[in-house]
Amino acid sequence: MKLAMVRRSGSPCLARVDQSGTRFWPVAELGSGLPPDMAGLIAALSAGATLAEPAGEGTPLEPADLLAPLPNPPRNIFCVGKNYFAHAKEFAGSGYDSSSTSAADAIPKAPIIFTKPSTSISGPWDDIPLVAGLDAEVDYEAELAVVIGRGGRCIPKAQAMEHVFGYTVVNDVTARDLQGKHKQWLLGKGIDGFCPMGPWIVTADELSASAMRVTCSVNGEKRQDAVTADLIFDIPTLIETISLSMALLPGDVIATGTPEGVGIGFKPPRFLRHGDVVECAIGGIGTIRNTLRQASMAELRGAA
Amino acid sequence: MKLAMVRRSGSPCLARVDQSGTRFWPVAELGSGLPPDMAGLIAALSAGATLAEPAGEGTPLEPADLLAPLPNPPRNIFCVGKNYFAHAKEFAGSGYDSSSTSAADAIPKAPIIFTKPSTSISGPWDDIPLVAGLDAEVDYEAELAVVIGRGGRCIPKAQAMEHVFGYTVVNDVTARDLQGKHKQWLLGKGIDGFCPMGPWIVTADELSASAMRVTCSVNGEKRQDAVTADLIFDIPTLIETISLSMALLPGDVIATGTPEGVGIGFKPPRFLRHGDVVECAIGGIGTIRNTLRQASMAELRGAA
Repeated sequence: MKLAMVRRSGSPCLARVDQSGTRFWPVAELGSGLPPDMAGLIAALSAGATLAEPAGEGTPLEPADLLAPLPNPPRNIFCVGKNYFAHAKEFAGSGYDSSSTSAADAIPKAPIIFTKPSTSISGPWDDIPLVAGLDAEVDYEAELAVVIGRGGRCIPKAQAMEHVFGYTVVNDVTARDLQGKHKQWLLGKGIDGFCPMGPWIVTADELSASAMRVTCSVNGEKRQDAVTADLIFDIPTLIETISLSMALLPGDVIATGTPEGVGIGFKPPRFLRHGDVVECAIGGIGTIRNTLRQASMAELRGAA
Repeated sequence: MKLAMVRRSGSPCLARVDQSGTRFWPVAELGSGLPPDMAGLIAALSAGATLAEPAGEGTPLEPADLLAPLPNPPRNIFCVGKNYFAHAKEFAGSGYDSSSTSAADAIPKAPIIFTKPSTSISGPWDDIPLVAGLDAEVDYEAELAVVIGRGGRCIPKAQAMEHVFGYTVVNDVTARDLQGKHKQWLLGKGIDGFCPMGPWIVTADELSASAMRVTCSVNGEKRQDAVTADLIFDIPTLIETISLSMALLPGDVIATGTPEGVGIGFKPPRFLRHGDVVECAIGGIGTIRNTLRQASMAELRGAA
């Protein structure tokens, strides 16, 4: 099942999308008393609520109307650093990696977990803002994001997949200069508009967690191409690790890390510039496509 | 003005507390149409809503009824690492500091910002849970926390203090082993129950940001004692820095960092154990007092 947030008569509408991604039915028509937001719906469905099978032909889905499927997770998104072998090596060798000081510790011995605030989430086609002070070294990171269904504390690996509601695609956009300068990665990773997400959430029953292909292209040039089987810390390990520290909640998001091929993996680095188009795709889920756009401070102040 | 969350007939009640901290009036009786939660109230007051002056003698405040004053900030709490000179040196020399690899970079050149999820917040008298796997190297960190009122993006230092609603006390409790092992600090810092907060929020008009005394004692023994004038990055700098990356929101919390004297500053380190009592106090705000308590995994699974 695909679940999306769709702009409808100007307002966001929680929707079930068909297999082909071309038609939708408002969730409110598939059950009564369901929450109007995605995090609430995930909690309800994980607690036993059900959606009726869509009847009728539904409404044609205009791709342009797709919004971020989960704009309101219960707290900051969990993200994993250096979780593919080849990327861990390229990052450690880039000069930007404050978590590693020698080739010997390029490959992490335990998951590196940081966060992006929910306020960084943007839609699958939204522009990525470039603003003075944050625009010098902006980089892409295509990632598989896990959406948690049933919550829980101290979840053992063997039961972890029972807590996965579904999957979506995120671009963990990063200002590399800030990531390095501030040591902890929040300020370089959590910039408003630096987490495009979508195009929808696909429920876990339709996908194999370890066999998804993650790709990223910039202006049509393939930059990243890997399979989730290559994760250093797989999804059960990430769930076990995070839930040891804190109870996971319905609607929590775990971005599982990015593969080799980011901009700082090149010598010299290839940072994103105004007008660049970044496409992140995952087989079985879909594609998000975002354009870098210079924005002024005044414009941003107005939006805030 | 002191604002608190008070347990009243079993439910949390937003309350205005008198100067002496001994009586309170429910906020719902001081204005109509005000939100019932602290983050909402802060947003409303920062947008121009007002509270009537309390009339009558109010209700006696039982200290035991005080809850965390701001259990629902809009996203994870912002925290600042190594923000007092003496503490930056003790931490860099402790062997636990993944952000520093030599004495030369012990003092940060830019604010180190990480987060604690709102789910880690607990009340001013709540026990701090010790559970297997997280209990070996638990440490205290008394900190002044800034509560944001009016939000904004790219806030210049000169205007930053206009965005401060008030202040409260937090203990940034930390599992040092996890903090080191996972490189990024979320898992060692964001543990459920590892952010005691309170006893209330004192509005900014009543305090001088740079002249507050921060102290911490363990079992009555003074361990930390500093003034906020010694912050490496002062409050305006923190607000300017964070708001460059993202718009600050009403109810956001910035824990400004802890002074010298944490457990790993001793040789050998002095970690917290079952039964230890930690008191964090800030002059002009008040004291929070929390006892370390061994808890079982089953108990925690039940709570989650």
